[in-house]
Amino acid sequence: MRFTFETSSDGVREQLFTLGEIPGVLWTPDGATGPRPLVLMGHGGGQHKKAPGIVARARRFVVGYGFAVVAVDVPGHGDRPKDPEYDRIATANQARVAAGAELAPLIARFQALVARQTVPEWRAVLDAVQDLDRVGAGPVGYWGVSLGCGLGVPFVAAEPRVRAAVLGLGGALASAEVAARVTVPVEFLLQWDDERVPRAQGLALFDAFGSAEKTLHANPGGHGEVPAFEVDSGVRFFARHLG
Amino acid sequence: MRFTFETSSDGVREQLFTLGEIPGVLWTPDGATGPRPLVLMGHGGGQHKKAPGIVARARRFVVGYGFAVVAVDVPGHGDRPKDPEYDRIATANQARVAAGAELAPLIARFQALVARQTVPEWRAVLDAVQDLDRVGAGPVGYWGVSLGCGLGVPFVAAEPRVRAAVLGLGGALASAEVAARVTVPVEFLLQWDDERVPRAQGLALFDAFGSAEKTLHANPGGHGEVPAFEVDSGVRFFARHLG
Repeated sequence: MRFTFETSSDGVREQLFTLGEIPGVLWTPDGATGPRPLVLMGHGGGQHKKAPGIVARARRFVVGYGFAVVAVDVPGHGDRPKDPEYDRIATANQARVAAGAELAPLIARFQALVARQTVPEWRAVLDAVQDLDRVGAGPVGYWGVSLGCGLGVPFVAAEPRVRAAVLGLGGALASAEVAARVTVPVEFLLQWDDERVPRAQGLALFDAFGSAEKTLHANPGGHGEVPAFEVDSGVRFFARHLG
Repeated sequence: MRFTFETSSDGVREQLFTLGEIPGVLWTPDGATGPRPLVLMGHGGGQHKKAPGIVARARRFVVGYGFAVVAVDVPGHGDRPKDPEYDRIATANQARVAAGAELAPLIARFQALVARQTVPEWRAVLDAVQDLDRVGAGPVGYWGVSLGCGLGVPFVAAEPRVRAAVLGLGGALASAEVAARVTVPVEFLLQWDDERVPRAQGLALFDAFGSAEKTLHANPGGHGEVPAFEVDSGVRFFARHLG
């Protein structure tokens, strides 16, 4: 793990790093020492580790509760090179949708493919970040919606360090079978008028989680229109389960 | 409005009253003066104005945010006499269910009938309580699940003083048409494994609300198993919209 750039503002220390080929960013409280809860955040499709929705939530976790937060670029996103194989599939999928194919199953297959790469990458990131004195082996949370849900469900299912997850804007086609193996508390965000994930698919994914504690938050609006008050709700959810 | 008994504990003043034939209870902060938000709470079937779930939430509203809270007994409940007509219908419905009839449509028709009495009653209660100096004409919220939802939807639709409502454990059969006339922010509680309200009926009622801001909170478990963290969520919801 190699730190490449560091800055600090309003009590939050932000460090860019690379772990092998993975570019990432770590947020911790200024002057933090000793172990603390850690939240890994997965960004959405076409976004990156420092997308505004990621940064805003990360700062809330750090400032409000003293958590550490880490986010990395998904392959083909942010500071990572384009992946010719993923690009080829994405282009083929666009052509299929233009020809009338359903979008959801194509997204599902694509995310399952990418997850085969990101699950081990994210586990390696946890290993590296938890080796730092100011993070340590505290409880871990996962936050990710849309692509961050499609990649997050298999990650949460595979990684016993994760004790709670905020997921959402994803459907059962992508993740139902794997979701049954998720047993930690889940807060699941669903957009009632999601133009990318059919409502029934989102409800079926919520239904599929194996967790005894899971809570569905559904709100009107499209895929990108999760209301601001859900940010507060996610912060409180992690405070309850990791704090 | 006649006050009949008063007590105070932990900063909360509790006053029993009658308004005509309606027995009620008013909670306000100890020593409160001047106008403040008011929450009207509707209890569940077979319960009453001081059921534990009502009292616990009422105290949270008063202590946390300085709100006033009022609850009254629904006809045939609590300190009110049995209503022969309602009793006759309830007995007939029990016989129909025993003979294999579906429960939900019977509940729906019954609640619609009772609401024709409770909507004007509750409006009169608002009038009386808001005449008190320590309550005044501040914003009003409504909280009610199960029977409190079946009676609450027509009340919220009819009463312009209500600015926000927590509803839930109710279905579209009872309330969909009236729900379309509800336009204030709604937080709607749905129990994923509700044995009394079919899941599809609960989702359809959420869908039916005319509100631009409405948020569905669905959790695993049966009709009576709303998780404790939803109490906090309801408190924050009213703080956001009435505070």
